[in-house]
Amino acid sequence: MSERIWIDKYIRPLVKADGAQDLRDDVASLSIGGVQVVTMDTLVEGVHFLSSDPLDTVGQKLIRVNVSDIYSKGAVPVEALLSVAWPKGVPEADFANLMSGIARDLAAFDFDLIGGDFVSTDGPLVLSLTLTGRCLSEAPVRRAGQINAGDTVWVSGKIGFGVLGLEAAMAGTDPELVQLYRVPELVPRSIARIVSEMSSASMDVSDGLLQDVQTLTKTNGFGIELALDDVPLAMQAYEIGHILKQVTGGDDYQIVMIAKSGVVVPIDHFTRIGRVVAAPGLGLTYKGERVNLPETLGFEH
Amino acid sequence: MSERIWIDKYIRPLVKADGAQDLRDDVASLSIGGVQVVTMDTLVEGVHFLSSDPLDTVGQKLIRVNVSDIYSKGAVPVEALLSVAWPKGVPEADFANLMSGIARDLAAFDFDLIGGDFVSTDGPLVLSLTLTGRCLSEAPVRRAGQINAGDTVWVSGKIGFGVLGLEAAMAGTDPELVQLYRVPELVPRSIARIVSEMSSASMDVSDGLLQDVQTLTKTNGFGIELALDDVPLAMQAYEIGHILKQVTGGDDYQIVMIAKSGVVVPIDHFTRIGRVVAAPGLGLTYKGERVNLPETLGFEH
Repeated sequence: MSERIWIDKYIRPLVKADGAQDLRDDVASLSIGGVQVVTMDTLVEGVHFLSSDPLDTVGQKLIRVNVSDIYSKGAVPVEALLSVAWPKGVPEADFANLMSGIARDLAAFDFDLIGGDFVSTDGPLVLSLTLTGRCLSEAPVRRAGQINAGDTVWVSGKIGFGVLGLEAAMAGTDPELVQLYRVPELVPRSIARIVSEMSSASMDVSDGLLQDVQTLTKTNGFGIELALDDVPLAMQAYEIGHILKQVTGGDDYQIVMIAKSGVVVPIDHFTRIGRVVAAPGLGLTYKGERVNLPETLGFEH
Repeated sequence: MSERIWIDKYIRPLVKADGAQDLRDDVASLSIGGVQVVTMDTLVEGVHFLSSDPLDTVGQKLIRVNVSDIYSKGAVPVEALLSVAWPKGVPEADFANLMSGIARDLAAFDFDLIGGDFVSTDGPLVLSLTLTGRCLSEAPVRRAGQINAGDTVWVSGKIGFGVLGLEAAMAGTDPELVQLYRVPELVPRSIARIVSEMSSASMDVSDGLLQDVQTLTKTNGFGIELALDDVPLAMQAYEIGHILKQVTGGDDYQIVMIAKSGVVVPIDHFTRIGRVVAAPGLGLTYKGERVNLPETLGFEH
């Protein structure tokens, strides 16, 4: 592994922004005016992805877990810095594969790489991405907002592909499900505007839907009643255990948001799953009956 | 290791900026207007620091290698995102120690932590810092600038503590030298203004002085004649081998810059070490005699 040669061959071609100075300087210039928010997520081999996951999918996942944070705030991605700690001795073809996945998703999500670091390690592959975003209104939509009893709770996409796909990957079954775990399908970019214009509080769903909704209740000092039968699941389920698995599994990279009562959220991308109530805490119902909270609401990723 | 508890106990206390939202959101807000440049450096245990280096010094080094990049562009640090991939099973006291070093240097260099990620790993400790900076003039001083034959070349501080200190650390000798390898001494913050006002091209010295000066020649299409007897060395040396070791060893985190001929650079922090010439490439002299370039000019870190 020669860091400089691999940078020239695989990383520099992805760098187009003026501010990146073609990666030939100590720092990059940030876009002026357009940048307001920033996030940083790290993926570790064996912790956040399996050693058997193809590296192009790992590159895509790295991009998507960060883009999901940006979209969930009503913002769109602007530019990124990439850190790669590459295991010594792992061949160049694997690095080419990783970078091809990153290139694919930089194009798909339309933002630039402007800098970063590339180093070697005796341990597992560790990837970090720092991603800036431009808010579509004056400020990001926060987890904490102006919330009132009667407001509605919405989630984008479907919940559960993360956990079901991981199970399939470990069992070696259902390649389609496995692919949805490896490369989570994000909402379209246009959803950032809906979040920005229609929600008063929002976050991305990454630790598990129940865990993340509970975070919203705690942050806002209100309660949320969530109807499990209304949650759009990756796999239709009629047994409560199978439903709970999907709403606590995490790794969904969808958006959960709260809209003022009366706001008409477009239902082609969002599903109404609950409402804000005065009594604090998270409450669950299924077919109109109250359901006890499971012991584990989600996982830290 | 409980990531959430450790974040609450050790990381959240370091977070003071409004935009960080107390680390309780998906993204941080960047300071508006003040931010123009950004850098990201990663340190890997066993590659960039020794497993025997105390972790508070590793935390300080992480901050300093990034601050050095920012200063070298005529900018001052504004805010940072920190990623820690923590080896499973390493005790909390070590994490507390790491964070105490980071806290010490956040205070010393006067900038805020606004976000990041904290994850576990089965491998060695991997640390990444993304650091933004505010330029003291309208734009950063680049590696490429308006250079002419007759311009002068300057370096800050002393060169060679990185390599001599590493040797001492591995041999278990000279604790003072070891400390200067573990926690590189940076130029004072006021130097950023000198760089911003007086230099036409600059970079930080991290791969080895000769390597980095050669990079300046290549970037600018000019030559530089460097007088080895003028380089301020960590350890005075009269043998050419001992001089060359220090000017190629790297890990110095000083600043090398080019000033227009006639510009009076304050000599309390900078030493004139050479001049720009028309013929491309790096030339060395020692006591007025030409010296051949060593085979290795520096190291990639």
